[in-house]
Amino acid sequence: MPSSKSSLITLTNLSAKQVGTLFSKGLELKKKFNQNPIASNHSFKGNAALLFLEPSTRTRFSFESACTRAGLHPLLLDGRSGASLEKGESIEDTILNIEALRPLFFVIRCNGDFNLNDIQKKLSVPIINGGWGMRGHPTQALLDAMTIFEKWGDLYQRQILFVGDIKHSRVVSSHLELAKISGYKIGFVAPKNFLPDVIPDGVQLFKNLDEGLQWADAVIALRVQNERHDEKSDFSLADYRENYGLNNKRLMKLKPNSMVMHPGPINYGVEIESEILADVRSVILKQVENGVFLREALIRDLMNGAL
Amino acid sequence: MPSSKSSLITLTNLSAKQVGTLFSKGLELKKKFNQNPIASNHSFKGNAALLFLEPSTRTRFSFESACTRAGLHPLLLDGRSGASLEKGESIEDTILNIEALRPLFFVIRCNGDFNLNDIQKKLSVPIINGGWGMRGHPTQALLDAMTIFEKWGDLYQRQILFVGDIKHSRVVSSHLELAKISGYKIGFVAPKNFLPDVIPDGVQLFKNLDEGLQWADAVIALRVQNERHDEKSDFSLADYRENYGLNNKRLMKLKPNSMVMHPGPINYGVEIESEILADVRSVILKQVENGVFLREALIRDLMNGAL
Amino acid sequence: MPSSKSSLITLTNLSAKQVGTLFSKGLELKKKFNQNPIASNHSFKGNAALLFLEPSTRTRFSFESACTRAGLHPLLLDGRSGASLEKGESIEDTILNIEALRPLFFVIRCNGDFNLNDIQKKLSVPIINGGWGMRGHPTQALLDAMTIFEKWGDLYQRQILFVGDIKHSRVVSSHLELAKISGYKIGFVAPKNFLPDVIPDGVQLFKNLDEGLQWADAVIALRVQNERHDEKSDFSLADYRENYGLNNKRLMKLKPNSMVMHPGPINYGVEIESEILADVRSVILKQVENGVFLREALIRDLMNGAL
Repeated sequence: MPSSKSSLITLTNLSAKQVGTLFSKGLELKKKFNQNPIASNHSFKGNAALLFLEPSTRTRFSFESACTRAGLHPLLLDGRSGASLEKGESIEDTILNIEALRPLFFVIRCNGDFNLNDIQKKLSVPIINGGWGMRGHPTQALLDAMTIFEKWGDLYQRQILFVGDIKHSRVVSSHLELAKISGYKIGFVAPKNFLPDVIPDGVQLFKNLDEGLQWADAVIALRVQNERHDEKSDFSLADYRENYGLNNKRLMKLKPNSMVMHPGPINYGVEIESEILADVRSVILKQVENGVFLREALIRDLMNGAL
Repeated sequence: MPSSKSSLITLTNLSAKQVGTLFSKGLELKKKFNQNPIASNHSFKGNAALLFLEPSTRTRFSFESACTRAGLHPLLLDGRSGASLEKGESIEDTILNIEALRPLFFVIRCNGDFNLNDIQKKLSVPIINGGWGMRGHPTQALLDAMTIFEKWGDLYQRQILFVGDIKHSRVVSSHLELAKISGYKIGFVAPKNFLPDVIPDGVQLFKNLDEGLQWADAVIALRVQNERHDEKSDFSLADYRENYGLNNKRLMKLKPNSMVMHPGPINYGVEIESEILADVRSVILKQVENGVFLREALIRDLMNGAL
Repeated sequence: MPSSKSSLITLTNLSAKQVGTLFSKGLELKKKFNQNPIASNHSFKGNAALLFLEPSTRTRFSFESACTRAGLHPLLLDGRSGASLEKGESIEDTILNIEALRPLFFVIRCNGDFNLNDIQKKLSVPIINGGWGMRGHPTQALLDAMTIFEKWGDLYQRQILFVGDIKHSRVVSSHLELAKISGYKIGFVAPKNFLPDVIPDGVQLFKNLDEGLQWADAVIALRVQNERHDEKSDFSLADYRENYGLNNKRLMKLKPNSMVMHPGPINYGVEIESEILADVRSVILKQVENGVFLREALIRDLMNGAL
C-alpha cells in the first residue's frame, strides 16, 4: 500500500536516477503497447480517486487511461459536480470523506488557494498533483522531459526554451524543479508582462524569439491565458502573434533536429499557427501520447512502493 | 490492433456473410449471458473512446455496456463536457488529441456538419458511427435487423415498413444500405412532408398505414422530431396520431407473426400508444437488449481484426 | 443470476441472522483490504446500473467503489443527465430500457413520489434502494449498525439516539426497521417541529439533549435540511445549535465508550461543531469507510443469491 510520503506534489524529492528509471519504464510500457495493444498488462486492483476541481479533459482522460491500463478503476469527481462533495462541505471535508472510501491514491487538480501540502499531512494515501494553480504541474513537466529523453536518450545539458506566459505557468514552475534534478538548461523569451519579477538563477533570458530558437534543443510554447493577466489592457494579441507566435517562417531559425512542444490546449493563431503541426519537429501529439505511458509508469511505481 | 480501415461509418463495405456472422455472434453472446450472467467472458484489455458530441443516454449506455462486457474501459466524453475537448479546440483537434491517448477505437456521435470520413483518414484506429446527423446510424440498423433475424433465422425478402419521419431519419439511411446487403425489402408510409424528395429505388410506397401494415413482416415506427422540421407550421400532432400513430386497433391489420419496433426514445401518444407494449408483437425492449450484444459482437470482431 | 425478489427496498424481509452475516462479511472484506489493498478479490463480471435521480456524490461513490471492488462496472446515470433517460421518457420507461441493457442489478436514488415497489414488480433483476425520498435509506442504516456492531460485537439492546430532523429522515425510517430485526433501542430528541406526529412504539423520547446523551451507546446527529421544512419561519438555527448542536462541552454528558455518528454531509456549526471530530468517540469517517465494505458485502451476497 503506497503511503502519503510517496505523494508527488512537487518534483523536488525525486533523484535524477528515479526520473531516468521512470522514463525508461514509461517508454517500455509504450513499446509493449505498440507490440500488442490488446494484451493484458494489468497488475493491480482497486480504485483511484480523480478529483478535478478545476476544468480538465485532457489531463483527466490521460490519468483515467493510465489508471485503467494499470488495472485500477478511476472514481471521477469533476468540477461539474461542484467544487465540493456535497452542499456545505469544504474541499478538505470532501477529500477526507473520499479517503474514507479507501482509494489507493488521489489525483487532484485544484486552484492555488487550496493547500495540497496541508491536506497531504492529513492523508494516509498519496496525492499526485494534477495541476495546482500556478504552483506546479509535475506530470506535465515529466512527460515533456520524457519526450525529449525519448529523442536523445538523455536530458543533461539539453536546452529548453519557454515562450510566452511564463509568469503564470505551472508547467514552467515544475520544469524549474526538474531541470535541477535532471541537469537541463532553461531559457525564457516573453514580453515583459509575461516574465516573472525575478528571473530564476541559471535561466537564460533571450531578447527576442529568434535568438532563443537558435539556442533551443526544444521550444515549449505556452498557452496565452488572458484571463489570468491583470495587465490585460496592455496586451495585444496581434503584437504577441507577431513577436512570439510560432509559424513556419519563424521555425527556419530552429535547429533541424530540435523539437516544438506545447502543453495544450493550443490557441491556434496566437502562440502557434496550425501550419507548424506538419513540421517534423512538432511533437505536440507525441507529448499527449507519452503522457499516458509516463502516468502509467508513475502509478505502477507508486503501487509498487518504488516512489 | 484494429486499423482505421475497419471503421464502421456506413454499412456499405459489409458483405451479407459478414452481417450474418455478426448476428450469429451477437445471439451467441446473448445465449451465453442468459446461461450465466456473472461468468467472465472478457477477452481484451484497454480503453475505448466514446465521444457523444450530441445528447444520448440510450446508445451511450449500450456501447458502454458492450465495451465493459468485452473487457474494455470506456472513456466517456459527452456533450455536457462541451463539443470540444478544451476551450478553443475544434472537434478535429479533440479527436486527434484523444487518439494520442491510444484508445483502441472510437465511437462517435456527432451532427451532420462534422465529416466523419475526413477525420477517419487522419486516424490510425477505427471509428464506429454512433449516430451521425441524418446520415446514418449503422449499429441501430444492425440491431433492428438482428432482432428480425433472431425471429425468423433469415432476412432475405423480409418486408420492413417504416412509418413516420423518414426524410430526416438516420436509421432509415442505414437500413437502405443494409437492405441491399442482406436482401430485405423496405416500405415507406408517411405524410408528404416526412417523405424524402426522391423515393429510393426498390422502396415500396404505401398510400396509407393500413396497406403498409398488411404488407409488413416488421413495422418500425420512427420518432416524430418536430425540432428538425422546417414545415412545423403545417404539422398537426393530432392528424399525425390519427393517420400514422400505432395503437391496438391499428395493429389488427398487422400479421399475427409480424413485429412492432421503434428505435427509441418513444413519444407515447404520438407515433405509438403505450397500450401496444403489451402486444406480443412488440419487441421494442428486445431491440434495446439485442443492441448490447450486437455491439459487443461488433467490438469483438473489430478487436479480432475480423471486420 | 439474482432475481428481483432479492431487492433491498426496505429492510423488513431480512432476518437478524442475515444482518449479522452481512456485517461479518463486510468486516472480513475490510480486514482483507487492510492486509493487502492491491490484491485482487474480484469475483464477478458484468454491469450494475447506478441511477441517481436525486443528487448524491457520497453514496454514489460508495456504491461505485463497492461495485468495482466486486469486479462489476457501474453504469452511472445521475441527476445531471436529467431525471429521465431521454427527452419525453418517464422514469419507468428509463428503468425498463436500462434493464433491457441487462445490468445485474440496479441501485436507485429517487424522490418519494416515485414508487420503487411498483417498478420492482416489473423488473427481473433486483433493486437496491440508494435513498428513497423520506421513505428509507437501508444501506445507510446497515452501515451505521455495522459500525456499532464492529465496536461491541453485538447490537442487541444497544441504545441509539437520533438528534435533529427525525420527522423527515429516511435514515431514521430504515433504522426503525432494522432495530426491530437486530433488537436495538432507539431514542429521539428534537425540537417539536422535527418530531414525527406519532412517536413509534418502543421509541424513547427525551426532553432534552443531555438526558439523551447520558442514555446513548451511540448518538446519530441528523443533517438539518431547511429546504424540507414548511415551518421554516418558526425555525432558528441559533436556537437549534444552542439546544441540539453537538460540541465538546455537550459531549461531556456522553458515556466515555459511546459513539458519535452522522450520515453526512454535515452542516458544521449547526448540528455538529467541527471540534468534535477530534474526539475519539467520533466515528463519522469510519461510517463512510464501513459503507463501502458493507455495500460490497451486500452486492456479493446479491450476486451469490444469498439474499
